[in-house]
Amino acid sequence: MTGERTLERFRDYLVGPARFMNVMSCFELGIVDALRGSGGRTADELGNQVDAAPEAIEQLMQLLVKDDLVTYDEESGRYALAGLGALADDDLHRVLAIMKMVKTVMLRQSFHLTESVRRRRPVGLETIYGYQGNLYGALAEHDDLRRSWSTMMDAVTAHIDPWFFDNIDVATGARVLDLAGNTGLGAILAYRAKESRGLRVATFDLPEKEAECLRNFKAHDVEEHCTFIGGDVFREVPQGFDVVLIKHFLDMFDKPQVMQILRNTHQALNVGGQVNILGPVYSEDIKSSSAVDFFPTYFLGCSMGQGGPQKLSTYARWLEEAGFTVTKAVAQDPAEMPADALVAHGILCATKNDR
Amino acid sequence: MTGERTLERFRDYLVGPARFMNVMSCFELGIVDALRGSGGRTADELGNQVDAAPEAIEQLMQLLVKDDLVTYDEESGRYALAGLGALADDDLHRVLAIMKMVKTVMLRQSFHLTESVRRRRPVGLETIYGYQGNLYGALAEHDDLRRSWSTMMDAVTAHIDPWFFDNIDVATGARVLDLAGNTGLGAILAYRAKESRGLRVATFDLPEKEAECLRNFKAHDVEEHCTFIGGDVFREVPQGFDVVLIKHFLDMFDKPQVMQILRNTHQALNVGGQVNILGPVYSEDIKSSSAVDFFPTYFLGCSMGQGGPQKLSTYARWLEEAGFTVTKAVAQDPAEMPADALVAHGILCATKNDR
Repeated sequence: MTGERTLERFRDYLVGPARFMNVMSCFELGIVDALRGSGGRTADELGNQVDAAPEAIEQLMQLLVKDDLVTYDEESGRYALAGLGALADDDLHRVLAIMKMVKTVMLRQSFHLTESVRRRRPVGLETIYGYQGNLYGALAEHDDLRRSWSTMMDAVTAHIDPWFFDNIDVATGARVLDLAGNTGLGAILAYRAKESRGLRVATFDLPEKEAECLRNFKAHDVEEHCTFIGGDVFREVPQGFDVVLIKHFLDMFDKPQVMQILRNTHQALNVGGQVNILGPVYSEDIKSSSAVDFFPTYFLGCSMGQGGPQKLSTYARWLEEAGFTVTKAVAQDPAEMPADALVAHGILCATKNDR
Repeated sequence: MTGERTLERFRDYLVGPARFMNVMSCFELGIVDALRGSGGRTADELGNQVDAAPEAIEQLMQLLVKDDLVTYDEESGRYALAGLGALADDDLHRVLAIMKMVKTVMLRQSFHLTESVRRRRPVGLETIYGYQGNLYGALAEHDDLRRSWSTMMDAVTAHIDPWFFDNIDVATGARVLDLAGNTGLGAILAYRAKESRGLRVATFDLPEKEAECLRNFKAHDVEEHCTFIGGDVFREVPQGFDVVLIKHFLDMFDKPQVMQILRNTHQALNVGGQVNILGPVYSEDIKSSSAVDFFPTYFLGCSMGQGGPQKLSTYARWLEEAGFTVTKAVAQDPAEMPADALVAHGILCATKNDR
């Protein structure tokens, strides 16, 4: 690549944070709402309506006009929705949920990316929130983090989980383990998705999750079919299962930890048993992967200080190394995902070898 | 614009902060230096060399490979410089200085953009540094801000000031006022640029700048030609000057403040006197302006809580409103600027009307 083209890339990098917050702020101030359903508004009218200086509105609108999200009519001095008006409500809500997550969970935290890599922990959480530990622990203590992260993650789960359960087989009467199943929602979903098979599902996670998990089972009326087992996935996993589910978990860790999880999963399964994995994956051709624009900074700088997705082929290789035979490896088709999607998910199914 | 295309724009916005810090971190960790002058390095070798986990290196390098800054050879597992290797040292230093400024002065601060617009002050400086006031005051108290901002600004000034002085006329024996001239460096540059004209230059700024300004005049051996006048540009400007220089200043303010500065400048000048203005400007065609990607967030969220550049034609109109006749209005030619440039500067020269 030429020096000229490289410098253009740097211009893109340099304006990334400013562009993100400029657009975000137009939503936060209420400018976009004020333009919605109006035939057009001047900076003065918008300033009155959202209680900001008209001069500031003019500055913030420049980027939206440049990017065709909004039009500006020189004659009347009026702004009106352009590209923003072409978005379906569902699309807009999804995009705003992700923007809010990026602002709350990543923007300031990513300042500490380099130090987080060096120390293998998300330093920004300590600096900004005084929290020692990873994002998933911090979510329990900090409302702003939890709200912005959960809203985004719930939208992802609602979309992705049905696709996952459509893709996996569970035999009648199977004993299923939901690895790192948190407070049981994954077990409940699994039970409901495959209810006709008469399966039993156990949530496996740290003992402190038990009380809330059992409350959830009761509230969802699945207490006869779902149980909780306390333990640490890096130490020992309970044995005697036909199916293990690993959802949104492997991507949090580096290869040594992933291998340990897979080997412990191997021990948990009966011979011929199945592991089914769901999580974000990088495209096989990295040049076409949106996820690499996002996840390294998210995992290393903002949530774990380690981890990050792999390619489907990499996970498949690691499964074989851990004593499995891969029976299915599918990724979401980018052509069927919305144009703003950062993340393609993958599913891997594998059978425990008889060795 | 279609909804589809709008969603693609949002994907760009969403990954802006993560892409910026991912690339920045590869420099901060020393990965780029380690690759320079090597035939290629594996993630393990790089990890050893920069003291980071090889798995983290692999994650961070994905984006650089995707964007052709670096190549990755699957066979050998080696990374090598691609686009990054094509950059001249000067270009790389300039780009890194701006990246450091963006990280230090903007990344975290811009989180507070919306509140800064509402309160008309840069709230992030108070939240992060406990500083009440604007960035230019904070520079005096916070080393990290000053170092990153000044390195960037010195590079801009070194490049832009000669162009400015080439473009302006100063009559022999002229009395020149450098408005908001800070601690005198602008006056010294002006004197040196037009020394053959036997001019006298006065720096006008707040009284607390006087001592350092006079020290600078002495150190540069111009004390016979340069003086300091203390005062507030928004209250009263000293009178009887042939030329007023306003450099890198108008863009800090909204129109009401700019008009006050221009009207006070009008009073400072003898009839027929000249004002010469230098500062960043937006392109007349906003669609081709890189500066709108950057400045609204910088001024509103990170430095002033107000202000921002205008088009050259807007400044020209404001000068006419303040009683001047514009004699020159030129902007830097984007074709002659480096490809990473965010900012085009403009020069406006105008004569005080006889009214």
